[in-house]
Amino acid sequence: MRSSLFEALFVPEELLLATSDARWLDAMCAVERALARASAQAGVIPAPAAEAIADACAPGHFDAAKIMAEGHRVANPAEPLVRRLREVNEWAHHGATSQDIIDTAMMLVAKTARELIFEQLDAVAENCARLADEHRATEMAARTLLQQAVPTTFGLKAAGWLVGVVEARRRLAAVELAAQLGGAGGTLAAFGGKGPEVLHLLAEELGLAEPPLPWHSNRVRVAELAGALELVAGACGKVAGDVILLAQTEVGEVTPPGGGSTAMAHKHNPASAVVAVAAARQVAPRIDLIGEHERSAGAWQAEWPALAQALAYTGGAAAATRETLAGLEVHAERMRANIAPELGDYPAADDTLIDRALEWYGG
Amino acid sequence: MRSSLFEALFVPEELLLATSDARWLDAMCAVERALARASAQAGVIPAPAAEAIADACAPGHFDAAKIMAEGHRVANPAEPLVRRLREVNEWAHHGATSQDIIDTAMMLVAKTARELIFEQLDAVAENCARLADEHRATEMAARTLLQQAVPTTFGLKAAGWLVGVVEARRRLAAVELAAQLGGAGGTLAAFGGKGPEVLHLLAEELGLAEPPLPWHSNRVRVAELAGALELVAGACGKVAGDVILLAQTEVGEVTPPGGGSTAMAHKHNPASAVVAVAAARQVAPRIDLIGEHERSAGAWQAEWPALAQALAYTGGAAAATRETLAGLEVHAERMRANIAPELGDYPAADDTLIDRALEWYGG
Amino acid sequence: MRSSLFEALFVPEELLLATSDARWLDAMCAVERALARASAQAGVIPAPAAEAIADACAPGHFDAAKIMAEGHRVANPAEPLVRRLREVNEWAHHGATSQDIIDTAMMLVAKTARELIFEQLDAVAENCARLADEHRATEMAARTLLQQAVPTTFGLKAAGWLVGVVEARRRLAAVELAAQLGGAGGTLAAFGGKGPEVLHLLAEELGLAEPPLPWHSNRVRVAELAGALELVAGACGKVAGDVILLAQTEVGEVTPPGGGSTAMAHKHNPASAVVAVAAARQVAPRIDLIGEHERSAGAWQAEWPALAQALAYTGGAAAATRETLAGLEVHAERMRANIAPELGDYPAADDTLIDRALEWYGG
Amino acid sequence: MRSSLFEALFVPEELLLATSDARWLDAMCAVERALARASAQAGVIPAPAAEAIADACAPGHFDAAKIMAEGHRVANPAEPLVRRLREVNEWAHHGATSQDIIDTAMMLVAKTARELIFEQLDAVAENCARLADEHRATEMAARTLLQQAVPTTFGLKAAGWLVGVVEARRRLAAVELAAQLGGAGGTLAAFGGKGPEVLHLLAEELGLAEPPLPWHSNRVRVAELAGALELVAGACGKVAGDVILLAQTEVGEVTPPGGGSTAMAHKHNPASAVVAVAAARQVAPRIDLIGEHERSAGAWQAEWPALAQALAYTGGAAAATRETLAGLEVHAERMRANIAPELGDYPAADDTLIDRALEWYGG
Repeated sequence: MRSSLFEALFVPEELLLATSDARWLDAMCAVERALARASAQAGVIPAPAAEAIADACAPGHFDAAKIMAEGHRVANPAEPLVRRLREVNEWAHHGATSQDIIDTAMMLVAKTARELIFEQLDAVAENCARLADEHRATEMAARTLLQQAVPTTFGLKAAGWLVGVVEARRRLAAVELAAQLGGAGGTLAAFGGKGPEVLHLLAEELGLAEPPLPWHSNRVRVAELAGALELVAGACGKVAGDVILLAQTEVGEVTPPGGGSTAMAHKHNPASAVVAVAAARQVAPRIDLIGEHERSAGAWQAEWPALAQALAYTGGAAAATRETLAGLEVHAERMRANIAPELGDYPAADDTLIDRALEWYGG
Repeated sequence: MRSSLFEALFVPEELLLATSDARWLDAMCAVERALARASAQAGVIPAPAAEAIADACAPGHFDAAKIMAEGHRVANPAEPLVRRLREVNEWAHHGATSQDIIDTAMMLVAKTARELIFEQLDAVAENCARLADEHRATEMAARTLLQQAVPTTFGLKAAGWLVGVVEARRRLAAVELAAQLGGAGGTLAAFGGKGPEVLHLLAEELGLAEPPLPWHSNRVRVAELAGALELVAGACGKVAGDVILLAQTEVGEVTPPGGGSTAMAHKHNPASAVVAVAAARQVAPRIDLIGEHERSAGAWQAEWPALAQALAYTGGAAAATRETLAGLEVHAERMRANIAPELGDYPAADDTLIDRALEWYGG
Repeated sequence: MRSSLFEALFVPEELLLATSDARWLDAMCAVERALARASAQAGVIPAPAAEAIADACAPGHFDAAKIMAEGHRVANPAEPLVRRLREVNEWAHHGATSQDIIDTAMMLVAKTARELIFEQLDAVAENCARLADEHRATEMAARTLLQQAVPTTFGLKAAGWLVGVVEARRRLAAVELAAQLGGAGGTLAAFGGKGPEVLHLLAEELGLAEPPLPWHSNRVRVAELAGALELVAGACGKVAGDVILLAQTEVGEVTPPGGGSTAMAHKHNPASAVVAVAAARQVAPRIDLIGEHERSAGAWQAEWPALAQALAYTGGAAAATRETLAGLEVHAERMRANIAPELGDYPAADDTLIDRALEWYGG
Repeated sequence: MRSSLFEALFVPEELLLATSDARWLDAMCAVERALARASAQAGVIPAPAAEAIADACAPGHFDAAKIMAEGHRVANPAEPLVRRLREVNEWAHHGATSQDIIDTAMMLVAKTARELIFEQLDAVAENCARLADEHRATEMAARTLLQQAVPTTFGLKAAGWLVGVVEARRRLAAVELAAQLGGAGGTLAAFGGKGPEVLHLLAEELGLAEPPLPWHSNRVRVAELAGALELVAGACGKVAGDVILLAQTEVGEVTPPGGGSTAMAHKHNPASAVVAVAAARQVAPRIDLIGEHERSAGAWQAEWPALAQALAYTGGAAAATRETLAGLEVHAERMRANIAPELGDYPAADDTLIDRALEWYGG
């Protein structure tokens, strides 16, 4: 799989693959297959038709680049697929519309990508928890407005990162990924009274939630997903940002993994942390809830690259934050030595807070 | 209460008041009062001190304009308040930092404003449900990419609005508004081991949630709140946007409340709906999760006006959408007459969908 | 003048005043007055009518709060004004539409606010130039990715700030503020062939540019203005951000003006610089160029508060940056002392660069 | 060339290619080659070294996918290239830093992509001008807030599009694309007094402007470019958006090019216009001017994909708008027939306005 527009620098290959055109196409095929089966089960289309369609919908059967290019002419990538499937069997796509296929495929892509993001995120959280536990007695300066304020511990700082990352992860996990099926106008009319049953079976077959209503014109769940990705990316970026500040030459309290400079032999750049912040800053998908009538003319289509990019870069932010923490050298001596004398007048951090955070995390 | 920067045109007075400088100051006073009482209850400060502080913290005691202006010099509005309170009693603000007061006050402001938003939003939802029920048999064209697609009903359209609005409302309702207390560096150190107890009592006193950890440096919950406001504003804007499209001269399927034009006697502008869309489009608060260390230098401070504005304009969007629906004239005849002949070949909408949505709403 | 939503903390009073509802109303009156005079001069309306209208349009004649509140009902603040003016004289607003008045008033408000921003910005630039000149030999570490890289001078750093601020200022100065006059549909039809002449005279009277065409439906110039404000705010924020980093406890190379903390006597917060960054981060107006037909239903109306806020906060960012630099203590010894030994291997900065920048600035 | 993340649907192949990783790498090679030659000409490096380096820098010499993947480890794509070039000749990259190469390459990529955008944009403008001229007498309704207001002509509407598109184009054309050279800290120190001369020669060799100062830490010109792309995309989106509204079933005043639906034989979707709006809505690059010191840790790196994407999608918006207008059928009869009777009371558009716009365009 090749990338363009710099993705390979910021996003791990598995995430790029999971959000690639090829996987969107696979997901669209999975939706058509599941729709055919659900429709056959509900008695809406003949069982042999469903099997013929399902066979044609094997992953990798169609050429994603061609489908996308043809999709330009009709402003959606489902139409070229549906055309091919109907050549296989006239019952293909029966009762559905392009948006059903693309929206449901978007949820499938999101589901897979979310799992990959969780893998990275869980490792980030584990690293935070480990640092919180290991460094519960590692005194350092708390800094507000970038001025030393009072003593804290590196453990408590890491516990703060932990809570942020886990809160964001829980928010993302709570986003309900639902199947979409409505037909041409979102009315389910073409299923002859069996629409709700087909929707139920479709959702079940694909492991997605069943929505209260077709959501073709209600983009709340897409915006909610986008917002949760922003939280995750931001919570990771917060960790990486703090690491970069702690790694400053004049502070020197941590050494994050990184590489050399093209110009200076002495220099050690906090490369992973920088990638994490840069990736996190790319995650700002604009999902426009104010679309026109039963399918919007522009806002909906803009969701596809926006969400694909947000999933990929959120994964990138999480992966680079994981790298940053996994390879982080903590200089406890320097942390102590940096504490300004004036801070000696202030009491030490309440060390039950770390236990509290770890308990919350474990619970 | 006066406004500036056009707010009075877009935001109902009660919402503007609820997010005004004066109410932020009241909220900060409420936090100082609750902190004093919680601290006294935990045995951290003397009870008479707590009462003296509580007395000084009555709403309206201080001049918000003065406090804000003085706040400029120190980059926060809590310092001028704390200075005054300490003149009243030296135990005022004991163990706390400016951010504790402002963050908790922000949650109180959000709590009150959220209730006001809910009032508007519930009325929007009721109107959607009423229209869904009343117009379950009112046939109209479903329009995708602004082209007539297949028949639907105005009831089903309204049911779609309903689900979007209620999903967004539930998301906003689920945002946990939590007290913040951490002291100068977020360590609770100045409470001599009683920090967690004081935090618990503070949260209880103010009717806010108790967070797993002080969240001074973890802005996930603020961004989550901001994101939920965007959903609410967007879901309202979607309704208003559709109304504007239906009210087009050439469509004429609804007449929303509105007013005349300065230049043309014949013209009826969909004013409320336009205000709703414009207000909704103002709701895009940028909460930066990547702040520096234990208190960020810029990103945190930018949250205050951003959140105040987002709360106000979300309320504005909801209120104007409510006005739009409450005064909406529906022209069922025109809806039917507008359906293009080609749509006659397609089956009618599955009318169980409306029941499904209403049941979900009621349940 | 009162403010709400925190503006007084971030924005100087003069800027808040310049962008307030009252001044927008004054500006709308100025447009109606100029329109009446231009129309009389072109022979479109009687001269005595023009004088009666001009008299009624004196600044402060109408109550801004009332006008804004009434404007809610019709989704624009010009209608209530026009109603009042027509009671004075039936020729008031002849040939024009609400948007003509509001758009041209927006340009007048922008013009005045821009001058105030320039005042602040010119002082920022002067301070940068002074620091560049004074510190041309003050060696310090250049820092890339927050790691010390090679030696530079504080003078060169300040020269870099200077160029950014001045480039942004020049961009803002180059934005053409133009009168808008088109009448109900942007056709100038109601002026009986004299529309272009009235537009010419109107622009002249108000000291605004004459556009190639009425721009009611073409928002490029508004978006261009918004973009230039973002540049100015960002260029100021860059200066303030660097100051905050240099003022870190562990770096200590500058002491910016600021105030104490509510919790810690020893602490000196870089308050002005923090206000500057926070104000700059508020400047991100979303001007939607994709509006509907001859006047958009939502996007246009959203411009008013967006632009008012952007003007105000850009001024706030510039003013706070000016305060930051005007009161900045530079610790040249500490700058030298902080340079890491490894940097000794690298040659000193090319000192002709400062002259180059100062020459460019002066030229 | 393959794409991912949906680009092929929205962006013409030539634009995708122009902004691809491969072309960024070619551009980085071009910068290294020009730097070597400029340095040799200035006597900073030996002439034969320059030739050896130039030879190694031929387009396509290195594998972009490999370079990007390796770039992840050091948070920049120049380091892997420089490592390879130094194996060829030790004088490669002499005096420069990664940022010099990437920033200047970014300007080269922008230069090429801008030319491609101009090609599309000029065709858009030509089409607007043609429509303005052809339809100067084609009466239609002007619509404000989506209500019919007064009569206008389709010619005048197209003239309004023309002015917006050309204003945006002129803004983009006015953005100065400049070479960047500063060395490790932006001081030009490593060129032994010949830095300014090398910068001058480098800019000349590459056909880029010479900046007043190295701009590594001053991102005004990048943000200005980003802003100009937003204007262009938005001005195109405005045209496409209006076309979509005019093509509504109930309006039917134009038929834009497009394709069928997967569900409905009768339906003609305004596909190109939808692609144009969707692409335009993707153009919202966030360039953060507030970066840290001499090279920011995250904000700078985030510019690369942001700008690549903005260039690509602006091209996509322009190309799809061109397609839309080139294939637009205008139904003059329907335009006239749609005019509501009440509009008969209002005078016709001032037809000199079209000449005025065409003259301005031609001039």
